[in-house]
Amino acid sequence: MTRQLHLLLFGNTRSAGPWRHPEVDHSTAGVRRELIERARTAERGTFDALFFADGLNYGPPATWPYKTTEDFEPLTTAAALSSVTENVGFVLTGSATLQHPYHLARQFLSLDHLSGGRTGWNLVTSFAAAAADNFSARGVVDHDERYRIAEEAIEVVSALWDGWGEDTIVADRATGVFNDVGKIHVADHHGRYFDVTGPIGAARSPQGRPVIFQAGSSDTGSSFAARHAEVIFTGQGNRERARDFYRSIHAKATDFGRRSAPLITPSLRFVVGSTEEEAARAERLAYEHFSPEYQAGWLLEVDVDVTRADLDGPVPESAFPDSTQTHQTALAGYRAFAREGNPTVREFLYRTVNGFGAQIVGTAEQVADEIEEWFHTGASDGFVLGDSGLPGQLDVFVDQVVPLLRKRGLFRHEYTGSTLREHLGLEVPRRFESPA
Amino acid sequence: MTRQLHLLLFGNTRSAGPWRHPEVDHSTAGVRRELIERARTAERGTFDALFFADGLNYGPPATWPYKTTEDFEPLTTAAALSSVTENVGFVLTGSATLQHPYHLARQFLSLDHLSGGRTGWNLVTSFAAAAADNFSARGVVDHDERYRIAEEAIEVVSALWDGWGEDTIVADRATGVFNDVGKIHVADHHGRYFDVTGPIGAARSPQGRPVIFQAGSSDTGSSFAARHAEVIFTGQGNRERARDFYRSIHAKATDFGRRSAPLITPSLRFVVGSTEEEAARAERLAYEHFSPEYQAGWLLEVDVDVTRADLDGPVPESAFPDSTQTHQTALAGYRAFAREGNPTVREFLYRTVNGFGAQIVGTAEQVADEIEEWFHTGASDGFVLGDSGLPGQLDVFVDQVVPLLRKRGLFRHEYTGSTLREHLGLEVPRRFESPA
Repeated sequence: MTRQLHLLLFGNTRSAGPWRHPEVDHSTAGVRRELIERARTAERGTFDALFFADGLNYGPPATWPYKTTEDFEPLTTAAALSSVTENVGFVLTGSATLQHPYHLARQFLSLDHLSGGRTGWNLVTSFAAAAADNFSARGVVDHDERYRIAEEAIEVVSALWDGWGEDTIVADRATGVFNDVGKIHVADHHGRYFDVTGPIGAARSPQGRPVIFQAGSSDTGSSFAARHAEVIFTGQGNRERARDFYRSIHAKATDFGRRSAPLITPSLRFVVGSTEEEAARAERLAYEHFSPEYQAGWLLEVDVDVTRADLDGPVPESAFPDSTQTHQTALAGYRAFAREGNPTVREFLYRTVNGFGAQIVGTAEQVADEIEEWFHTGASDGFVLGDSGLPGQLDVFVDQVVPLLRKRGLFRHEYTGSTLREHLGLEVPRRFESPA
Repeated sequence: MTRQLHLLLFGNTRSAGPWRHPEVDHSTAGVRRELIERARTAERGTFDALFFADGLNYGPPATWPYKTTEDFEPLTTAAALSSVTENVGFVLTGSATLQHPYHLARQFLSLDHLSGGRTGWNLVTSFAAAAADNFSARGVVDHDERYRIAEEAIEVVSALWDGWGEDTIVADRATGVFNDVGKIHVADHHGRYFDVTGPIGAARSPQGRPVIFQAGSSDTGSSFAARHAEVIFTGQGNRERARDFYRSIHAKATDFGRRSAPLITPSLRFVVGSTEEEAARAERLAYEHFSPEYQAGWLLEVDVDVTRADLDGPVPESAFPDSTQTHQTALAGYRAFAREGNPTVREFLYRTVNGFGAQIVGTAEQVADEIEEWFHTGASDGFVLGDSGLPGQLDVFVDQVVPLLRKRGLFRHEYTGSTLREHLGLEVPRRFESPA
């Protein structure tokens, strides 16, 4: 089969949407309506899935005044959207550090049934102190230990998802025997971090198991991803860095003896217009309505502090920490942005609204060219797309860019399967096959 | 305002539905369709809410062959249903023993926003060994300690729900200040069982806080409920026992100095027909299609064991445990059923398909009479209704019983509010007002 492009869309609205624009309804009801609208538009564009980032904290610090409310919690959000859509998938961030694997396994499997097999788990480890403090007084778990916990968590979750097989349900109306309990696998896991007996009383997922996404980019993190992920979400500021990352993941996956490497879908923010002038106008509008203070607060989470810097002055070297145990890749990405083109603090902050990911401003043709270039030169297998959050931008992408990608034979004309795994062209994992 | 009847409907389909009936589609897709259908029918009947029971285990024991898959997980289920309904509420069971209060608070609040204020938390403590074993190797937490944990959990959850006030959001487009962070309350809870800093980054619930339901019936449990619950869910086998319970809760609530007692909504299973013959036929059909073996497996969870007894013989005294620390009320209820009318094991099992709650078989008029009798004689403020799970029964209730209740001035003709709290006639709790 020809290699196909995969497109996901950031589902989060609060972070994407510059609420200061007069046409953006920032009320709870407005956000709810926008979520449904986005999901339906993504489905109209035959996107693979919506992607929901998440953290388990509000802050830091709680006193920084330039923050909106957070997005709704991802599992409840995706579940609400699952019943007003038919095909588009839902990839949700869940923490292997601060959520218990039994709840994770059960809620994801439930959503996978409710959505007819359209769910993916973006497994993250939690590094934020403010998140850790919502669950205990023990503070943040050390970087390498977080990955050891994640290794065990994914093992437990997979065992629970594999509790029932395709042949477990017999449903014999005459005898009243619903399942062949001899075929139910009890995980009976007793490890260093978790004791989980199981089983979950739920049938096997319509797609075998929910799809595993992972976003680790540090050395330990990318090894974990190369080993366990079916899709890797990553931020890479430009094609060159993305190619290096792509090569390194493929090499690691080969080292781990995987039959095929994980798909790699970096984040890409687009601003699009019918003409170059329109695109530039949309970009200017986004720049005018973005909140540098909001963004500065957000960067505090990764220890980049420009809250005391002059917005129209240069980015001070003191904005970056001397060293870090966490989010090493993020920091490298932000440092690169602060150096490229000598931006003011305000410009630097605007450049980071898609994290340390890439951005493209242009006509539909130019955006499609950029996507094709990444896709065909070993930089990515697709993208997690973010828009400016301004009214209409997503529609322009779906109505003008998607048709070009289809015409070029890169992207599906319609959904050919019903599960997220089918959209992504991933095999259904055999039961008890180890995660990977 | 005239006192109004409150009707909730069991949302769970797997337990209610006798899957052996040829017209019941027991597939995952079938259950999903039925869930949506039930929610819409409940809304057509202007019910207050759907009620989802839940346990965090499948079993015991894993080897008993007469079990179906469990229902879907309640939070994801209710979220999926919230976007295909407008008014009906969702009351979900959540464990204060095995779920962390930060996740509970955040997911319930998220669902409350997504549903426009239609959520209730049925707070339970978890007594099942099979559930405890899914989370640790420490075994079941002792009965009284479970309630101490629950006391602290409800305190943490309430503090998190009260993080934002009605006046916290200022949303000043010119300055870019979204909220007045000085008005956000940080829980900063450090107690015996939990350390939770907070806040959750979510606005205050559209109904102030999700509604607190509780189902404790033991001495400790009913004291907890009398103190903290806004609505009490209970099983009472008949009106006399229900009246005793109602009186005792009201007395306890007065002792705790509450302004008003919690609403009390016992479970009631109905089988209804247009005529007595039709009702009897529906009852026979339900009896023929229920699975005594399934029910026997379910009773094992409360230590009632008739799995080795002759289905057509009497209920042996050995079926009941000598003593118990847990589910004392349940056992008293089941013992009473085993004595009343000298049933066979099969008849006893059929009698317990609504747990130890009450049942009524009759015409619409007779069912309405029974409901009115409970409501007007101090036995209840309404009901959590369960049907036989056979096709059509819920429709008969909505089309024939509900109009009678309306005509008698007991039940609303249409929804007059949009939140669950409004449906139940409960006040919006003031911020920082202690739970109760």
